[in-house]
Amino acid sequence: MAQIAHLPRNETGIETAIGILKQRFGERLQTGQSIREQHAHTTTWIENQPPDAVLFAQSTEEVADIVRVAADHRVPIIPFGTGTSLEGHVNAPAGGLSVDVSQMNQVLAVHPEDLDVVVQPGVTRKALNEYLRDTGLFFPIDPGADASLGGMAATRASGTNAVRYGTMKDNVLALEAVLPNGEIIRTGGRAKKSSAGYDLTRLLVGSEGTLGLITELTLKLYGVPEAMSSARCTFPDVTSACNAVILTIQMGVPVARIELLDTDSVRAINAYAGLDLPESPLLLLEFHGSEAGVAEQAATFGEIADDAGGTGFEWTTSAEARTKLWQARHDAYFAQLRLRPGADAVASDVCVPISNLAEAVTRAQDKAKELGLLAPILGHVGDGNFHTTALIEKDNMDERAQCDNFLNFLSDLAIELDGTISGEHGVGQGKMVSLEKEHPSAMATMKAIKRAIDPDNIMNPGKILSPIE
Amino acid sequence: MAQIAHLPRNETGIETAIGILKQRFGERLQTGQSIREQHAHTTTWIENQPPDAVLFAQSTEEVADIVRVAADHRVPIIPFGTGTSLEGHVNAPAGGLSVDVSQMNQVLAVHPEDLDVVVQPGVTRKALNEYLRDTGLFFPIDPGADASLGGMAATRASGTNAVRYGTMKDNVLALEAVLPNGEIIRTGGRAKKSSAGYDLTRLLVGSEGTLGLITELTLKLYGVPEAMSSARCTFPDVTSACNAVILTIQMGVPVARIELLDTDSVRAINAYAGLDLPESPLLLLEFHGSEAGVAEQAATFGEIADDAGGTGFEWTTSAEARTKLWQARHDAYFAQLRLRPGADAVASDVCVPISNLAEAVTRAQDKAKELGLLAPILGHVGDGNFHTTALIEKDNMDERAQCDNFLNFLSDLAIELDGTISGEHGVGQGKMVSLEKEHPSAMATMKAIKRAIDPDNIMNPGKILSPIE
Repeated sequence: MAQIAHLPRNETGIETAIGILKQRFGERLQTGQSIREQHAHTTTWIENQPPDAVLFAQSTEEVADIVRVAADHRVPIIPFGTGTSLEGHVNAPAGGLSVDVSQMNQVLAVHPEDLDVVVQPGVTRKALNEYLRDTGLFFPIDPGADASLGGMAATRASGTNAVRYGTMKDNVLALEAVLPNGEIIRTGGRAKKSSAGYDLTRLLVGSEGTLGLITELTLKLYGVPEAMSSARCTFPDVTSACNAVILTIQMGVPVARIELLDTDSVRAINAYAGLDLPESPLLLLEFHGSEAGVAEQAATFGEIADDAGGTGFEWTTSAEARTKLWQARHDAYFAQLRLRPGADAVASDVCVPISNLAEAVTRAQDKAKELGLLAPILGHVGDGNFHTTALIEKDNMDERAQCDNFLNFLSDLAIELDGTISGEHGVGQGKMVSLEKEHPSAMATMKAIKRAIDPDNIMNPGKILSPIE
Repeated sequence: MAQIAHLPRNETGIETAIGILKQRFGERLQTGQSIREQHAHTTTWIENQPPDAVLFAQSTEEVADIVRVAADHRVPIIPFGTGTSLEGHVNAPAGGLSVDVSQMNQVLAVHPEDLDVVVQPGVTRKALNEYLRDTGLFFPIDPGADASLGGMAATRASGTNAVRYGTMKDNVLALEAVLPNGEIIRTGGRAKKSSAGYDLTRLLVGSEGTLGLITELTLKLYGVPEAMSSARCTFPDVTSACNAVILTIQMGVPVARIELLDTDSVRAINAYAGLDLPESPLLLLEFHGSEAGVAEQAATFGEIADDAGGTGFEWTTSAEARTKLWQARHDAYFAQLRLRPGADAVASDVCVPISNLAEAVTRAQDKAKELGLLAPILGHVGDGNFHTTALIEKDNMDERAQCDNFLNFLSDLAIELDGTISGEHGVGQGKMVSLEKEHPSAMATMKAIKRAIDPDNIMNPGKILSPIE
C-alpha cells in the first residue's frame, strides 16, 4: 500500500498557536491522544496521522479567528466533519489543528417555496432529512455514511442516487467559507442559476478543505416523490447487466437508483441478510415519480432487462419490500466483510463512461483473481462508478503489496477507459499520484490556484496536491 | 447608459504581434474596418470597440500559437464564436486580436451509449442538433440565438429549458482550452462524475474568455423524448402565475419549459403573430416524457393552474400546434421591438429565488412605468430568471439615462431579493459594477485566480473584472 508522507512540522508555530487558542477556547481545545487519533484518519487502510490539537468551533467567526491565528503562525488547519471520508482527508501529515465543526449543526433556514435550505457544515445528511420530515421535502445525496454536509461538499460526494439527483456539485447553491487568510467569503446565491462571475462555489466543492473551510451551505431540496418503486433483476454476466443500464439511461427512464452487485457481493448479502438471490450479477433499481409514472418506469425497465437477458425481474411499490431490498444493499459493505472475517476492507472508486463499464468491471475482476485478492464489487452503474472492496489482512505485507498493485491497476484502467480515478471519494492522500496521471496538463493550473489562495499552504496540506510548487 | 471604458493600448506589441501573425496566417488574418467592427459588439446598446485584427483559427495548435505570440508581446486576445452575446463580451477595449473559431466547427465524436459528444468550439447548437438528427439524441440548451457552443460555455448560457436540463454548467463534461501562456489544458473527462481534484471545467465555464480560450468541449446529450406536449394558461396577474409555477416545481412535475409573458409581451405577440391570446399574463409550458407521462404532467399542471386562478388552460401533443405556440414565444423579441418601431432593445437578465419572482416582476413593471419606459417582460420562470426589454431611442439621452437607472434598479432589486444580477447573459462589460455589489466578499478571490492564471491580463481584458489588481 502506498506510503503516506509525513511533511515538515512547524513546531514553534504549532506550540504558539495552541497556546493562544487554548486561552481563547479553553475546554473546546483538546490535546488528548485519543481524541487526536480519533480526529485523524481511521476508516481506511491509510495510516493515522493525528493533529496536535482538536478545536470544536461553534460559529463562522470562531472559525475565522482560529484560521487567523493559524495563518499568523503558519500552522495547518484540517477541517473535520464526521471523519467518514475514505482517502485520508482528515489526517495531519504536518501536524496542526483539526477544526471540528460538528457543533455547528443548525439548520438555519428552510425555504420550501424555493426548494432550498441553509445549513451549518456540521449538519449530517440524515439529521437534515429528519429535520425536513414534515415539510414534504428531502435532500437526496446519499453517500452511505451519515456524513456531514460540509464534508460531503468538500469531497464532492454523491452515492446511489446521483444518477437522478446529481452529486454535491449539482446540489450546492451557495457557500460561506473561511479562506486561508481568515477572511469570510460568500459564493453563489439562492437563485437557481447565475452567470455572475467565476464559479467559486464549484471551485470550493471538491477542494477537500485545501482552499478554505466551509462554514455554511445552501442546498437544493426536492419534493418527496408521490410514489417510489423498487425492482431487481438477475443477469447472466456483468456485460448484459451493463447493456440493460445503458438502454435504460438512453431511453430517458428517470431512474432514481440503479446499482450493480457482482456475484461475490450477491453471495455476501445472501449470507448476511438471509436472502436467496440467484448468485449471479444483480441490478437493484428504484424509481421516483407519480403512481402511474413509477409503474411505467418499472415496466419499461422490465422490457429492457428481458431483452438484455435478465431473469427474475420483480418490482414492487410496497414500502416494506423496498426497504428490505435496499437495506441489503446498504449493508453490503458489512456483508462483504463477513466474506473474510477479520479482514480489512480497501475501497476503490473509479468511474468510467458507461459504454466501458462492463470492460472495466470484468478486467477488475480478472485482475483481482490474478492477484489472489477477494474483492467483491458494488457499482452506481447509472454513472459508471463502481467500488471494489479488497478484503486483506493489514499485517500481511504480501497482501498489502498486492492490494497496492490492484489499486494502481484500477486507476490506470480508469484512465485508459476515458474515466476518472475517483467518482466520489476524492483524492485526499491516497490518490495524489493517480491524479497527476489523470490530469497531467491541468496540474499546473490547480497548483497555481492553490498558491494564489493559500500561499503558505496551511489549509489541509498534503491533500490533492503535494507539493504545491 | 453606463459608459464603457477604453483601456490603455500596447501599440508596439499589437503592431509586432500582427506582423508576426500575418506572416503565418496570411489571408486568415484580417484588418479591414468592417470585419473588425463586425467582430466587436453589435447586438446590444454597448458601444462597438473593434479589435485590431481578426484571426480565423482552424485548430487548437493554431490557437496556441496565436496566444503564444500574443503572450510574448502582451497583446489582448478576444475569443469570438458567433458574436451573439449581450454584454460586450467580444469588444476590444484595449485593442488586440479577435480569435474567431467559427471555422473550428467539426463534431469530433458522438458516443451514443454514453450520451455525450465531443465538438470544436465553433459548432453552433443548431448545427449540433442537425448533426445529431438521426441518432435519437439532442443537446437541449437553447439560449435563443444560434450561438456557438464554445461561446455558450464561456458565458454559462442557458435558456428556456434550463428548468429541466440545467445550464451549460451542468452539461459540459470536459474542456480543452488554451491558457494565457499558450499551454493547452484538458479538464474533466467523459465519466459522468468525478471527484478528482479542483473543478477546472466549472471554473472555465462562465469565465467569459478571461482565463483561457475554449478549443474543444465534451457535452452531455439526451434521448429525444418519446412524446412532447405543450400547454398554455392565462392568469389574472403575475403573482398568481408565479404561484402556479412554484407549486408545479414543488410537486416535482419535470416540466421542460415554463415561460412567463407579461401583458405587454402577450400584446406584442398577438400583434406580431396574429394571435388572439387574452391580454393578461400568460404561462407557456412544454413537457417531455412518455405519451402517458406528458399527458399526466399536463393534467397535473392544469389542476394547479386552476387552483391558482388560471383560465383558458389548453394543452396539446400536436406538433403543429406546439410549433405555432413556441414560434410565437421565440419571436417575442422581434414582436416586442414592433411595439415601438425604430426603437432599440436593452435586455436585462436578473434571476431570483422563485418565491421572490412575483415581487421582482411587479416592482420591475412599476419602476418601468415610473421611469416612462416601455419594457415588456419574458421570463424563464421555473428558474426565477426574467428579461425586461426596454425599448428606447438610442440617441435620446434622457431615455438612455432612464434606461441606465432601470438596469441599476433591477440589479439592486435582484440582490435585495436574494438573487443574481445575471441568470444567463454574463457580466461582460455591462455588469462589472453590479458584480461587485452582488459578490463583495468574493471579488478578491476572483481577482487572485485571474492574476494567477493570466498575470499579464491578456485574455479578454476589461470583462468581468476590471481592474484585476
